[in-house]
Amino acid sequence: MSLVQLSPRVQELQRRLTEFVENECIPAEAEYQKALGTGEQRWKTVPPVMDRLKTRARELGLWNLFLTREYKEGAGLTNYEYAVLCEIMGRSPAIAPEACNCSAPDTGNMEVFAKYGTAAQKDKWLVPLMEGKIRSAFAMTEPAVASSDATNICTRIEARRGGYAVNGRKWWISGAGHPKCGVFLVMGKTDLSASKYGQQSIVVVPADAPGVTVVRPLTVFGYDDAPHGHCEVVFENVWVPKENLILGEGRGFEVIQGRLGPGRIHHCMRSLGMGERGLELMVERVQSRTTFGRKIVEHGVVLDYIAKSRMELESARMLVLRAADMIDKVGAKNAKKEIAMAKVVVPTIVLGILDRAIQMHGAGGVGQDTPLADFWAGMRTLRIADGPDEVHTRQIAQLEIAEQNARLAAKRSKSGLAAPAKL
Amino acid sequence: MSLVQLSPRVQELQRRLTEFVENECIPAEAEYQKALGTGEQRWKTVPPVMDRLKTRARELGLWNLFLTREYKEGAGLTNYEYAVLCEIMGRSPAIAPEACNCSAPDTGNMEVFAKYGTAAQKDKWLVPLMEGKIRSAFAMTEPAVASSDATNICTRIEARRGGYAVNGRKWWISGAGHPKCGVFLVMGKTDLSASKYGQQSIVVVPADAPGVTVVRPLTVFGYDDAPHGHCEVVFENVWVPKENLILGEGRGFEVIQGRLGPGRIHHCMRSLGMGERGLELMVERVQSRTTFGRKIVEHGVVLDYIAKSRMELESARMLVLRAADMIDKVGAKNAKKEIAMAKVVVPTIVLGILDRAIQMHGAGGVGQDTPLADFWAGMRTLRIADGPDEVHTRQIAQLEIAEQNARLAAKRSKSGLAAPAKL
Amino acid sequence: MSLVQLSPRVQELQRRLTEFVENECIPAEAEYQKALGTGEQRWKTVPPVMDRLKTRARELGLWNLFLTREYKEGAGLTNYEYAVLCEIMGRSPAIAPEACNCSAPDTGNMEVFAKYGTAAQKDKWLVPLMEGKIRSAFAMTEPAVASSDATNICTRIEARRGGYAVNGRKWWISGAGHPKCGVFLVMGKTDLSASKYGQQSIVVVPADAPGVTVVRPLTVFGYDDAPHGHCEVVFENVWVPKENLILGEGRGFEVIQGRLGPGRIHHCMRSLGMGERGLELMVERVQSRTTFGRKIVEHGVVLDYIAKSRMELESARMLVLRAADMIDKVGAKNAKKEIAMAKVVVPTIVLGILDRAIQMHGAGGVGQDTPLADFWAGMRTLRIADGPDEVHTRQIAQLEIAEQNARLAAKRSKSGLAAPAKL
Amino acid sequence: MSLVQLSPRVQELQRRLTEFVENECIPAEAEYQKALGTGEQRWKTVPPVMDRLKTRARELGLWNLFLTREYKEGAGLTNYEYAVLCEIMGRSPAIAPEACNCSAPDTGNMEVFAKYGTAAQKDKWLVPLMEGKIRSAFAMTEPAVASSDATNICTRIEARRGGYAVNGRKWWISGAGHPKCGVFLVMGKTDLSASKYGQQSIVVVPADAPGVTVVRPLTVFGYDDAPHGHCEVVFENVWVPKENLILGEGRGFEVIQGRLGPGRIHHCMRSLGMGERGLELMVERVQSRTTFGRKIVEHGVVLDYIAKSRMELESARMLVLRAADMIDKVGAKNAKKEIAMAKVVVPTIVLGILDRAIQMHGAGGVGQDTPLADFWAGMRTLRIADGPDEVHTRQIAQLEIAEQNARLAAKRSKSGLAAPAKL
Repeated sequence: MSLVQLSPRVQELQRRLTEFVENECIPAEAEYQKALGTGEQRWKTVPPVMDRLKTRARELGLWNLFLTREYKEGAGLTNYEYAVLCEIMGRSPAIAPEACNCSAPDTGNMEVFAKYGTAAQKDKWLVPLMEGKIRSAFAMTEPAVASSDATNICTRIEARRGGYAVNGRKWWISGAGHPKCGVFLVMGKTDLSASKYGQQSIVVVPADAPGVTVVRPLTVFGYDDAPHGHCEVVFENVWVPKENLILGEGRGFEVIQGRLGPGRIHHCMRSLGMGERGLELMVERVQSRTTFGRKIVEHGVVLDYIAKSRMELESARMLVLRAADMIDKVGAKNAKKEIAMAKVVVPTIVLGILDRAIQMHGAGGVGQDTPLADFWAGMRTLRIADGPDEVHTRQIAQLEIAEQNARLAAKRSKSGLAAPAKL
Repeated sequence: MSLVQLSPRVQELQRRLTEFVENECIPAEAEYQKALGTGEQRWKTVPPVMDRLKTRARELGLWNLFLTREYKEGAGLTNYEYAVLCEIMGRSPAIAPEACNCSAPDTGNMEVFAKYGTAAQKDKWLVPLMEGKIRSAFAMTEPAVASSDATNICTRIEARRGGYAVNGRKWWISGAGHPKCGVFLVMGKTDLSASKYGQQSIVVVPADAPGVTVVRPLTVFGYDDAPHGHCEVVFENVWVPKENLILGEGRGFEVIQGRLGPGRIHHCMRSLGMGERGLELMVERVQSRTTFGRKIVEHGVVLDYIAKSRMELESARMLVLRAADMIDKVGAKNAKKEIAMAKVVVPTIVLGILDRAIQMHGAGGVGQDTPLADFWAGMRTLRIADGPDEVHTRQIAQLEIAEQNARLAAKRSKSGLAAPAKL
Repeated sequence: MSLVQLSPRVQELQRRLTEFVENECIPAEAEYQKALGTGEQRWKTVPPVMDRLKTRARELGLWNLFLTREYKEGAGLTNYEYAVLCEIMGRSPAIAPEACNCSAPDTGNMEVFAKYGTAAQKDKWLVPLMEGKIRSAFAMTEPAVASSDATNICTRIEARRGGYAVNGRKWWISGAGHPKCGVFLVMGKTDLSASKYGQQSIVVVPADAPGVTVVRPLTVFGYDDAPHGHCEVVFENVWVPKENLILGEGRGFEVIQGRLGPGRIHHCMRSLGMGERGLELMVERVQSRTTFGRKIVEHGVVLDYIAKSRMELESARMLVLRAADMIDKVGAKNAKKEIAMAKVVVPTIVLGILDRAIQMHGAGGVGQDTPLADFWAGMRTLRIADGPDEVHTRQIAQLEIAEQNARLAAKRSKSGLAAPAKL
Repeated sequence: MSLVQLSPRVQELQRRLTEFVENECIPAEAEYQKALGTGEQRWKTVPPVMDRLKTRARELGLWNLFLTREYKEGAGLTNYEYAVLCEIMGRSPAIAPEACNCSAPDTGNMEVFAKYGTAAQKDKWLVPLMEGKIRSAFAMTEPAVASSDATNICTRIEARRGGYAVNGRKWWISGAGHPKCGVFLVMGKTDLSASKYGQQSIVVVPADAPGVTVVRPLTVFGYDDAPHGHCEVVFENVWVPKENLILGEGRGFEVIQGRLGPGRIHHCMRSLGMGERGLELMVERVQSRTTFGRKIVEHGVVLDYIAKSRMELESARMLVLRAADMIDKVGAKNAKKEIAMAKVVVPTIVLGILDRAIQMHGAGGVGQDTPLADFWAGMRTLRIADGPDEVHTRQIAQLEIAEQNARLAAKRSKSGLAAPAKL
């Protein structure tokens, strides 16, 4: 039961998506993994079941739901409404988001094109992305610098022969391994003499442009996450025409900030879906095994683990939904504290839940027969991706201090009248 | 900004109450403490400032807000709306709730009279309580048994001479020390042969009835919480007439369960108010002192403490407000998991916040010059009062397991159709 | 079983002290508290039982054990040996240390006199302190500045009329309330123009010197800790002769650093004694009460609470004993990281243990019928006293970094030869 | 600096082993991983560098150190001494233990043969194991039952044709994938009618016996841990002669209990070595990168992370060394509480340290360019292997309660005389 009443249309989407995920996506997970196979092969095929599910999702009207009502190309949902649906997709994270064409990093990239793209850029890249014909990657993080401070990014995008020459080494480029990856959004410096936040720009680089090399897949706690993967990519004298620039030179920070707000909420809600599935597996497991003469659920701390997990999921979900609601009402910029709080809280609590679920599964919990260890590894990266917890935590504190100081100053200046506590 | 829009009337109450608390209650705290004095005296006077503030609160329309719209005697608010106001009162917990005639345990007792009382009982006790002329206590906990399982309560309420004779020893009876405490609601066994949950009854015992002895005040950590206090009280052959029985013999559990749901939410919201005040004091302090050449706020973990506190307050508040909203929409009985979660989560996180605020105040934080240590001690009791965390945690887990099992059974029986994830 | 074998003499002291504490001190706690009474009275008497126990401790050879073998006045123990004994006294913290003339702050003050005192200072103050005829206080912390950085201390000690005039306001001066408090060691600035760490000096101020005013007792979570107390003390034009200076002008930091090392270890070991007693009370309690048809010990997390407490006590004790052993072997200065670690770890874990013990006692746990809440409050101050956790934590990290950098540098310079891992 | 002085011989081993690990093993890690290659190949070769290092370790006298002084075949060390060396090997966990022929599960299996083996069994299996010619596996855990309660093990070992027929499915059989794995110790039921702890026996099964099938490698998070691996193994009508029985029918529990005590300490010490290496990487990293204008080490919680890691490593190490010392002095059986405490505490704190180190490395921390994620995954299994934390925690609590009850009973019976607190 939600504090905010969902519209009949969204309730219907919710119902339909739940059925799709539970009855079609989750059951397809094993087949998908098996079809991927082993070795080099894993990077060359998309298991056929994915195309079948994509067709199915389009039939069910579960396609491209992520593009909210401010985009004419989108499904017309609010961020709050999409968040609710996002959680459901998160229950089968390797299958459902892609099947519904709602998977990162494509969603963020499509938002960039929809929000900042020229008509030509939209035709060329937004259209095939929204039709699920190609996939994409966002190339920001670099091995050589602490990329959590994006001013450190040192790839060069230099004006050359009426276009730009791109040179740099990126890593942890999610999606770069996918056989259908057609395009990179690459961040780099166009102007070393500009102010700190005016040096970076973003250009579109076709995946097959000469000079683009996918060097190697990186692993996440041993997982390669094929076929999309997280890759090290080198751009060596890659030339792109001027019209591949997004928004304008020196406007890279503007683009990444516009891109991140809702995306973080989506990550959070998918994470909650993974947490819910972890809790379900735990509840099922502890009732099905017996040690020392009692069901596991009757031992020691097990009820505590379950209750703690439920309390954390509920509080975290409310935090995320409220951030989504604020994006709808006052915009992502004014919701940055709320978004940051959700981004920090959710992965931490879901990691705890998955860890307890693993523990309740014994050795089986760390292996490949449940999704728990895989979920855990993916979730662990979310404490780092888009900025580590520590950076967001600091920002939350600074915003809190600024707000309190402003409130106090107001109180003092206005003859002692206090502002209402923030609710 | 709240997920649920508050009505203009409630916004006005919120504004007015905030001003009252910030500008009249908090500034009166020192005077109130000083007027209480030391020694035996502390139990004999109510500092005059309290009556002044009560008059003020009535003038401002901030009186008896707690009795929600289902009671004709009340202020017509929803539980959600009252919860929002309750937090504001919690910012000055020793003053504001009593000044607004919204302080525990009176509120719960008034609810009992309003919900279950006969017309005569209402005339005799509800009316003076609602006018703030008398105060009251609820006598349940006993030193001899683990009272978190209320079936253990062993005070006897025996039919005698056309009424009841009450015999038993109670302790931690909050409010029993108050000079205006006029009445006890006493829980005890009327029928030892009834089923486990049918043995207990509740009778009204006037505070001046022969045989009632307030033995001693108990301390909470080192605080006596005079003048209301938490007392050990002996009932020795106390006779009350038949009409002092609440609801009926053997219906004690019914009464306490009806009493507790909203009361727990009120405790939670007041606690959040205390947490907010703790965080404010922390933010102010760390900007005002210098060590090792830097403001405290510039050292190590301080921003982390602030951010953590804000994240916890926001998640916990959402949890409580959602529980309040569910009480409004589906009743306290159907919101018992949500109420239990709020009851467990809130004191724990507020204790952490107050602890960090204390730490940032150094030695001053544990003493009497800030409200932090006093708040902490009060908050610590909430992990025990109305059942220790461990009991509620277990209940949450059992409800979770039951819900998941039901969902799974439904899914299996209905040809594989999943229920939507709970939001 | 200890890693280090104790000598027969120490084993005998250990046995005798255990009996004394268990059979004489702990049973006297209630009598002591009762004799203290209420109100102003609490600051004027030392309950007679204390003198009786002091006599007893002297008879048993349990007197002044704290002054280790480097002092000719002492009992000839190592720091390690005294630490072991200190834990036993900590089991009855309000009685046993004072009964054995081993209570803070006297022990630290006696060490100062023994280490830095002139013959005249020793005659005048060390002798009566060691005979338990007077008690003492150490006046450092000030309300006006963040005293965790002792360079902030702003009391003035100015050369005047052949001696010093002391002016300043101190607070949290433990022991200042004691009727037998005969002397203060006061820290303050003698030379504002000296280097940062050369401005402070320490002078001895007799408690009855004109201009010394004990303003008020401060409370620790509501406790006044009478009769010794923690007081606010004003020094107003207090004159002392030149010979009351300790060690020399500008040598205040030298004195406090010499004073603190072993003292912190003593605090830690006493704390472990309190933790052990808390755990014992918890273990006893959970076996003696029944809820929902089972003994408390059979419910949920209770075994987890007990095991966690035992694991924490054992690891923390080893940490403290190792620090004590290092003081013996390489001196307090070279053990500063180990001392700091013990200082941070012990109060934190003992607070957790006491908190769980309180929770297992229900309402009774926060009141005056068990020592738990009182222990907790005392323990809480140790996260602040002698520098808050945050300051020590930072120091530990800085020492760690310096050591690793040194090791790495050595490794690199010495043709790749690694130093052995520190054990 | 250790509480217990190490002998010159052990100090020399410590020095030599440190050099070997730092200068030969750690530098060989990358080569080892590379030589392993990808796909099926990983299970078929042992990278040649391993044989080179084994030769080197023998030359340096660092071979078979694990077999303590009670075994005539061994290196004559105490458990305490070996523990100290074990930590050093743990710094390069995939290389150093195997290079020194001190890697699990071989060490435990060799102990079984040395302790319980017949002369013939020793000749056949102990000798080649101690020469590093073959490796081995211990087959206990089963997918079908909760194996943390070993009475659940349901593999059958039935008398057949003058020997035993083994039938059952095992999983998480570490080492079963190794090309040199020559022998399994298999646990199973010989007598279903015996008492609960008398049904299980252990037999030696040659890896090439007909009916033994290594079904698949299991992954730990995403790691396969080739070439040794953790495999699912099916035993289908595997026949072994009578002389392959260890110790006697129904004595399986005796064997596994004898096997586990020291083995757990070895795991703990190696884990501490991994924790030390993680901390070193963290300390190095935070000094080498810059964000927002400052080195990472100068931001927020970083010093806190480092200090916390050091405090945890020191306390945990003391706990393990004390358990090792108790095994030496009173035997593993009487040290079972201490062993259990070490087993629970160490992996938990090392996981925390590695997690913080990962966080400080950003995306790089979860991948293959540092050992951190790999270490983390291995460490995570230790909270499950040899019994999950929850089982050991419960045992610790039960031992604690029993000890306290015994002490209390003794105190009461012996006219109030208390036993000395355990040190």
